[in-house]
Amino acid sequence: QCSLDSIVNEKMKQALIHLEFNPSAPQKKISCTSIKTSGKLSSCPAGTVVTGCACGYACGSWDVRGETTCHCQCSLVDWTTARCCRLT
Amino acid sequence: QCSLDSIVNEKMKQALIHLEFNPSAPQKKISCTSIKTSGKLSSCPAGTVVTGCACGYACGSWDVRGETTCHCQCSLVDWTTARCCRLT
Amino acid sequence: QCSLDSIVNEKMKQALIHLEFNPSAPQKKISCTSIKTSGKLSSCPAGTVVTGCACGYACGSWDVRGETTCHCQCSLVDWTTARCCRLT
Repeated sequence: QCSLDSIVNEKMKQALIHLEFNPSAPQKKISCTSIKTSGKLSSCPAGTVVTGCACGYACGSWDVRGETTCHCQCSLVDWTTARCCRLT
Repeated sequence: QCSLDSIVNEKMKQALIHLEFNPSAPQKKISCTSIKTSGKLSSCPAGTVVTGCACGYACGSWDVRGETTCHCQCSLVDWTTARCCRLT
Repeated sequence: QCSLDSIVNEKMKQALIHLEFNPSAPQKKISCTSIKTSGKLSSCPAGTVVTGCACGYACGSWDVRGETTCHCQCSLVDWTTARCCRLT
């Protein structure tokens, strides 16, 4: 019974070490990109979320529509940029 | 000793496959929401962080107080929106 | 064969429980900080990404250069703040 137990324990230990030093899920990080379009709306690509928006003509008034679209609210705005992030 | 080794190896393999395809931690993603309030301050819910702020009257000057509160700095600002994100 | 199988199964079960309740990777969350500098450019520290920018003189027009630097576009801007986030 000694050898059985020790073999199983040893293999378990190796498997745990393997998992801890080489986890199946790779280290995640945040990646962001900017999407700039003409007009007052700019949408993020699928799989990304809006973390902030920028607007033409110095406008700092914006809102996010449906999680993925930046909307600049000033009456005079020539471009809108969505800052879009996701985990990679 | 052959059967012992092969049985343990096989079970180890199955366990590793199980862990890799069904990791206990579900796939994380970023989720964001906007909190809009009257005045010059807007705070994110507990567990979220400010990634950006928007201000009324076109104001683009803001700072973040204490990790979770947006503060719009212009003298004339009627609303403040905090963009609040977290991992889910 | 009964004892071999049951011993290995039991140890596997324990190992899986151990991994699920004490995952090697600690729970990740988003952490953000603001970097404010004089002028029209502000850069995030290594390992962080820009999620949004703020500018002096009410300016809401900005872009992100090279993933880590906020650039305020208005002609009159005395400070730039980069909102910088990462997983911790």
